[in-house]
Amino acid sequence: MTVDVITYGETMGLFESERIGPLRMGGSMRLSMAGAETTVAIGVTRLGGSAAWVGVVGDDEVGRLILRTLRAEQVNTEGVVIDPEAPTGLLLKERRSADVSRVSYYRRHSAGARLAPEHVLPEHVTQARILHLSGITPALSESARAAVFRALELAAQAGRTTCVDLNYRSALWTPMEARPILMELIKRADIVLATQKEAAILTNLPMADPFEAATSLGRLGPRLVVVKRGAEGAVAWDDGRLHEVPPRPAHLLDPVGAGDSFAAGLLVDVARGRTPQEALETAATVAAVNVACPGDWEGLPSRAEVDMLRGDDVLR
Amino acid sequence: MTVDVITYGETMGLFESERIGPLRMGGSMRLSMAGAETTVAIGVTRLGGSAAWVGVVGDDEVGRLILRTLRAEQVNTEGVVIDPEAPTGLLLKERRSADVSRVSYYRRHSAGARLAPEHVLPEHVTQARILHLSGITPALSESARAAVFRALELAAQAGRTTCVDLNYRSALWTPMEARPILMELIKRADIVLATQKEAAILTNLPMADPFEAATSLGRLGPRLVVVKRGAEGAVAWDDGRLHEVPPRPAHLLDPVGAGDSFAAGLLVDVARGRTPQEALETAATVAAVNVACPGDWEGLPSRAEVDMLRGDDVLR
Amino acid sequence: MTVDVITYGETMGLFESERIGPLRMGGSMRLSMAGAETTVAIGVTRLGGSAAWVGVVGDDEVGRLILRTLRAEQVNTEGVVIDPEAPTGLLLKERRSADVSRVSYYRRHSAGARLAPEHVLPEHVTQARILHLSGITPALSESARAAVFRALELAAQAGRTTCVDLNYRSALWTPMEARPILMELIKRADIVLATQKEAAILTNLPMADPFEAATSLGRLGPRLVVVKRGAEGAVAWDDGRLHEVPPRPAHLLDPVGAGDSFAAGLLVDVARGRTPQEALETAATVAAVNVACPGDWEGLPSRAEVDMLRGDDVLR
Amino acid sequence: MTVDVITYGETMGLFESERIGPLRMGGSMRLSMAGAETTVAIGVTRLGGSAAWVGVVGDDEVGRLILRTLRAEQVNTEGVVIDPEAPTGLLLKERRSADVSRVSYYRRHSAGARLAPEHVLPEHVTQARILHLSGITPALSESARAAVFRALELAAQAGRTTCVDLNYRSALWTPMEARPILMELIKRADIVLATQKEAAILTNLPMADPFEAATSLGRLGPRLVVVKRGAEGAVAWDDGRLHEVPPRPAHLLDPVGAGDSFAAGLLVDVARGRTPQEALETAATVAAVNVACPGDWEGLPSRAEVDMLRGDDVLR
Amino acid sequence: MTVDVITYGETMGLFESERIGPLRMGGSMRLSMAGAETTVAIGVTRLGGSAAWVGVVGDDEVGRLILRTLRAEQVNTEGVVIDPEAPTGLLLKERRSADVSRVSYYRRHSAGARLAPEHVLPEHVTQARILHLSGITPALSESARAAVFRALELAAQAGRTTCVDLNYRSALWTPMEARPILMELIKRADIVLATQKEAAILTNLPMADPFEAATSLGRLGPRLVVVKRGAEGAVAWDDGRLHEVPPRPAHLLDPVGAGDSFAAGLLVDVARGRTPQEALETAATVAAVNVACPGDWEGLPSRAEVDMLRGDDVLR
Amino acid sequence: MTVDVITYGETMGLFESERIGPLRMGGSMRLSMAGAETTVAIGVTRLGGSAAWVGVVGDDEVGRLILRTLRAEQVNTEGVVIDPEAPTGLLLKERRSADVSRVSYYRRHSAGARLAPEHVLPEHVTQARILHLSGITPALSESARAAVFRALELAAQAGRTTCVDLNYRSALWTPMEARPILMELIKRADIVLATQKEAAILTNLPMADPFEAATSLGRLGPRLVVVKRGAEGAVAWDDGRLHEVPPRPAHLLDPVGAGDSFAAGLLVDVARGRTPQEALETAATVAAVNVACPGDWEGLPSRAEVDMLRGDDVLR
Repeated sequence: MTVDVITYGETMGLFESERIGPLRMGGSMRLSMAGAETTVAIGVTRLGGSAAWVGVVGDDEVGRLILRTLRAEQVNTEGVVIDPEAPTGLLLKERRSADVSRVSYYRRHSAGARLAPEHVLPEHVTQARILHLSGITPALSESARAAVFRALELAAQAGRTTCVDLNYRSALWTPMEARPILMELIKRADIVLATQKEAAILTNLPMADPFEAATSLGRLGPRLVVVKRGAEGAVAWDDGRLHEVPPRPAHLLDPVGAGDSFAAGLLVDVARGRTPQEALETAATVAAVNVACPGDWEGLPSRAEVDMLRGDDVLR
Repeated sequence: MTVDVITYGETMGLFESERIGPLRMGGSMRLSMAGAETTVAIGVTRLGGSAAWVGVVGDDEVGRLILRTLRAEQVNTEGVVIDPEAPTGLLLKERRSADVSRVSYYRRHSAGARLAPEHVLPEHVTQARILHLSGITPALSESARAAVFRALELAAQAGRTTCVDLNYRSALWTPMEARPILMELIKRADIVLATQKEAAILTNLPMADPFEAATSLGRLGPRLVVVKRGAEGAVAWDDGRLHEVPPRPAHLLDPVGAGDSFAAGLLVDVARGRTPQEALETAATVAAVNVACPGDWEGLPSRAEVDMLRGDDVLR
Repeated sequence: MTVDVITYGETMGLFESERIGPLRMGGSMRLSMAGAETTVAIGVTRLGGSAAWVGVVGDDEVGRLILRTLRAEQVNTEGVVIDPEAPTGLLLKERRSADVSRVSYYRRHSAGARLAPEHVLPEHVTQARILHLSGITPALSESARAAVFRALELAAQAGRTTCVDLNYRSALWTPMEARPILMELIKRADIVLATQKEAAILTNLPMADPFEAATSLGRLGPRLVVVKRGAEGAVAWDDGRLHEVPPRPAHLLDPVGAGDSFAAGLLVDVARGRTPQEALETAATVAAVNVACPGDWEGLPSRAEVDMLRGDDVLR
Repeated sequence: MTVDVITYGETMGLFESERIGPLRMGGSMRLSMAGAETTVAIGVTRLGGSAAWVGVVGDDEVGRLILRTLRAEQVNTEGVVIDPEAPTGLLLKERRSADVSRVSYYRRHSAGARLAPEHVLPEHVTQARILHLSGITPALSESARAAVFRALELAAQAGRTTCVDLNYRSALWTPMEARPILMELIKRADIVLATQKEAAILTNLPMADPFEAATSLGRLGPRLVVVKRGAEGAVAWDDGRLHEVPPRPAHLLDPVGAGDSFAAGLLVDVARGRTPQEALETAATVAAVNVACPGDWEGLPSRAEVDMLRGDDVLR
Repeated sequence: MTVDVITYGETMGLFESERIGPLRMGGSMRLSMAGAETTVAIGVTRLGGSAAWVGVVGDDEVGRLILRTLRAEQVNTEGVVIDPEAPTGLLLKERRSADVSRVSYYRRHSAGARLAPEHVLPEHVTQARILHLSGITPALSESARAAVFRALELAAQAGRTTCVDLNYRSALWTPMEARPILMELIKRADIVLATQKEAAILTNLPMADPFEAATSLGRLGPRLVVVKRGAEGAVAWDDGRLHEVPPRPAHLLDPVGAGDSFAAGLLVDVARGRTPQEALETAATVAAVNVACPGDWEGLPSRAEVDMLRGDDVLR
Repeated sequence: MTVDVITYGETMGLFESERIGPLRMGGSMRLSMAGAETTVAIGVTRLGGSAAWVGVVGDDEVGRLILRTLRAEQVNTEGVVIDPEAPTGLLLKERRSADVSRVSYYRRHSAGARLAPEHVLPEHVTQARILHLSGITPALSESARAAVFRALELAAQAGRTTCVDLNYRSALWTPMEARPILMELIKRADIVLATQKEAAILTNLPMADPFEAATSLGRLGPRLVVVKRGAEGAVAWDDGRLHEVPPRPAHLLDPVGAGDSFAAGLLVDVARGRTPQEALETAATVAAVNVACPGDWEGLPSRAEVDMLRGDDVLR
């Protein structure tokens, strides 16, 4: 399992309505899968890198759908655990209007939340160039939280690069609960990704200036901090130097997955030894392509597509 | 809430695949609702009777879908409880082949399982002609089981007719667990409905002769026992007299809901004072129409349709 | 307009539900077109014959859909009248169960019912080998009835073969109203097609023996009478000689259009001078192919398909 | 039937194409329902108010679809009349391009047009806080017009608030025909809603200044006049005082239903005693949410959604 | 075959994905047809002109689909050749993002590429007012190229107007290969249509000023040259006089077919003797309507629609 | 690549119509993949065995769809060759009636036909327990034929079991052309699978008795010959002993893939050392499950499903 990126987390079955309108109207839905970490992993393999995802799924058709999809996308699933005791979690996605989606979870007692330290194997973590984690996983359960910290510890021992995307989810915990845990993650991470809003929650300051936010997170230990600002691009704190990542023009169709596709673009380039500046440009392009296509991960681009667009207008 | 039939139980959101094949292939699904007791209630109102359903749903779009559907079908929902603490349960239906469907539940910690004795109001039970219950509800939780027995007790005190459909669900409990509870229900019921297989489980005899099965259940106390035999019709034990209910020819498209539509036809006629024999003929016709249409309850007939078919071949 | 078959009548827009179930559930429908006479005309052209249809449509998109479809199928539409004063009629088709369809009309004040004698041009009727009419048209309106009789008169004068398919529609008139008119049609027709039920209505005898029915219709004047018996084949009275048309095995999917496709097969062969016996065999094959495909006319076969199946089992 | 709002009018079955393009191409359609007054009624109940609709439907599946939908949305249908003599009207909606929809009616001889004074019961009108009518109903038939005036008279006698939305429909009558009738309605109304274009038609002045238009309508008698200006907001004449209702930003997907959802928002707040200014703000928010979702009424918001958006950007 | 416009070329079966995303995800597609020349022909007939298309299709269902569609749209297909030796070509259309479509061809050995000089009949070419050709056809095969030049020669001899739309396709040939052939076409054409990019390829100058481009093409011989600039309108060189065609505002949904609908609008007006200026205004309106509807040709307008929009904002 | 089964051949993109009817009507299709050998390979992995497929695909989205699907189904694709010079082949599937499907190919110059001996690597063939080939591949091209014989040679040298399924395709070659090649394959195979019709073609005897057919094929060299008889089961010649494989009852929905799923069931059991008798029983069960689900391979069962059904009625 020598891969560019290994990542741990929960992936769920996704039911998304085909029509815009309240879910209570019933009717046509699509069954697919969704999970922040698997979006990153698929992004990495589409770009020509290699990636492994480790998580727990139930011994059910939704779990098998997740495994089928990951294998189709060439994500290594050797470490995946199948737990016959709990169902794979679900996510219902209502498209309330042309540009508002609402999500509800059936993940409280899911297989995914049973991720535990014993699922984090040294031989997996140490053979990956980069360990990627999100701030969702420690909010799932005590055992999942322990798994996250064990992975960070193993990576640190082996000298691997670690990346944490804060991914604060208000449905899972309060800012108060999240803050100390996310702080611990940041301290252990080489790379930290946050939206401007997450940075505000963490620093407890109301939507601070993104440069200040990046700087204040950077002071906690990471080598590289990226504060993402949606259509306004991003700000990076690179070992003390601040610079802006200009936004890529995009025809926005589905904003979900923007952050994870950004992470994928960044990590695959970092893994290949490119400079942060180059990697951030790749990241912005990957995100711009992905949001122009419905689905969290379906529109992730190949390396050829990204190269074609570098410097150019993104897919229009 | 003066209704012909009141019923208590759990109703869930239903995701059913539009294509035949393993669910793991993903793709198009339909969102609707499913629940044995609400199928009975809708069957009653479609036939011109009045019905109320009492259960607990979450404060979510799936819960609202259930309420919308019941109101559309003129089922009284005044007693429904909305519980903001738990999600409405879900049911995933895989159509594995032309005639095999498989079901998986997300109901373990659902709102529906939180049905409790305090939701069973005397003014509801005593104003209904018939109280209908299924053997599913006592398997959901301790509180649901207590609710069921409280409803039976209130009905008995008020001299209301009580009906129990055994509806044994192996996903919820073992025969060993189910047997003593179902026995208690039968003892308290005026009318008992069972499939031949359920009768066998209950009597612990391997697929006994249906006449014997009906008789042995009849001896437990009910006035009327119906042992349903699918395409072979049914056998009724009516206060000691045994007679057969001939099967109605039907173009079977979706067997789910057959038993509940049978119950609806029976109860609406019993409520109107028809003889068991008449009521059983109605029941068989209602079931034959319903299974010729996809969906648990969507194809339930009106009284006019049933009258048109009485004596005739069922919808062909 | 030198064609094998010319036919007059009403064609409507058809809304058919995509799912089986009561129409009141709403949801997906398909918009297409339907009309007994145009099914015959399309049947003729698919089999390599030529056909013209004359009728009135509104100056609206549904009327244009009808014209588009007929042109696509190479039916001559030169005689079609576009009436800006009335809308094209509609037909709603509910698929109530696997094998019961129910139809409701929006044709009371439709353009199609405004068919009138002035739309029946001598140069059209006299240049066709066969004039085909159905018993629906005289039930639409006074003017439509007059048009039908004018067409028969013109054909008689020019010595053209005339064919009438009784097509009794209970939604349009009572047997009492229909009988005298249909009698007049039969007297003026060379070829008469009737279902066994229609023959019974006309002769006022309860489901008479098909041979007797054919004989009694034959005595009214036609050269050839066919009494159709669905899955049991047909009976023909050919200038005094009775013979049976054996049924063709078919995987029945949609019985609508069976009679009209039978007529198409018969007429195209009669127009080419084949014997009644040969023509009836073609007719039975064409009907068997058409009912194995959903839609009134979509599944009509080519001559090559019919030849391939002659003597063989029909498409299975 | 003590409700906040009672409304009288016609509701039809709606066939809407699923794809953009001329309807003549045929193919997939959706069957639902549409009617200005029922959109208002659903808007009121979604916002937590109570509403009743009174109209006539046919004894057919389309009529039953309308009743199912209204009950699902908790609109009181006790006063609805089922007329077995006429079919429920239909409306075909062509989506000619991304932002042009075209509508054609099958309502000339519909059940809905048979609304008559005897369907307007004093006990209904006098138990509602507000009577809402549209300018469509008096254009349907003589009896419908009489019904409208009877309702206004009964409301006046009982001291109820009356609201009229002009809703001029060029397919039903000419400006010349409409003007005197609409003038009579305005004189009898406490609240009058008009688009800027309708105000111009009525005042016979080419697109007058909205303030002038509101003033000139206000002088006819109403307490409150609102002239709606689409994306530019609205102008209100409140007992002599003019003020602007600023537009709410919205991602426009389907403009149909904008006016009716505005009315719903206004009336529910007026019924609860809020000031016109507050009510107009609610109205604008409700409309902005509704047009961001396809369908006339499907996207109408709950009170919670409106409160969340008050002062904020509307659903984006 | 006395028609306004005759055109020669290849038309293919089109598989277009229903969802946006990489084609590799599989799933729902739509089967239709596509071809530059048939889009022009349909545009002409929709506008009330007459048109014939000549090409080769295989003896297969895709070929029959093309013929059905053209007949439905009243395009004369008398000259179409059915070649049993080769399949009708295919085109797969991937919708990669909200506004990027990608196309791949299965036309290498298709029936369409077998168009040959013997399919170009003098009686066809000389009876048409205008001969329209695209720069695609000479790139298909040697015989197709010869057919194109034979058609031009026959038209020149008969004094017919000739129109060439450059339609450069990089999948079929390189600029180097295309240039000499396209030059020859231009020299023989009365009317030449080119995009600004095509003009640049041909003149070998990097995106020259559109006025210069039109002038330099005009000097090669044509009477009228139009350089199309997408959303910025067009520039025309009319026998030495340059003028601008202002763009029409349009809600762009599907840009494919814009150029061909422009050609249709231009040619139908030229055929009716309108001035180039008038014809170009029609052309711009037709294109604006067509791109507001998905599909290459489905949204082409009628003359009534164009007249309604002349001077007005295009369908919005 | 140590696998139970390795197989060589062509897999194509599949466009299958969603509705029954002539393909010329256009409309909704599904894009998936189809290939006899990949159906076998997927059958093997679903049953818990391991399998590799080697073939050539184009560098296009259809090729990527094939690779995605195979990886999803855990088929080893290491040996697959991507050829940028030719497109992946296509297959169009028309559902002409409820039980007749018709297929047309776009494979003449496809990537798949470019399979060549250099793609058959010794390290692949010798590491598989069984080599499986079909009679389709030698009909594709000279190089594909050479590849097939090279694979057989390598397997013979390494002492691997070889299996050939005759799979005669009349669209690719005549019986005359096929016979000598298929004879050569049979001589080199340990296991031979043929339908009764294929056996007749090969032995040039009109539908011989299946026992005779099996015997005569068996005399050519194989250890095991199976003559498949559809709904009547199969006949096996096992090293001289003849025995019958009883048919499994099945609700037939889609017969395509029946033979390949039979092969998969047989080979996975042979690879695990089960007796031919056991393996044939598995084979019949696997086929019966697969034909009860639409799609060539989508319905292939897991080992658990097969075990559950062994001795029982197949999925009903």
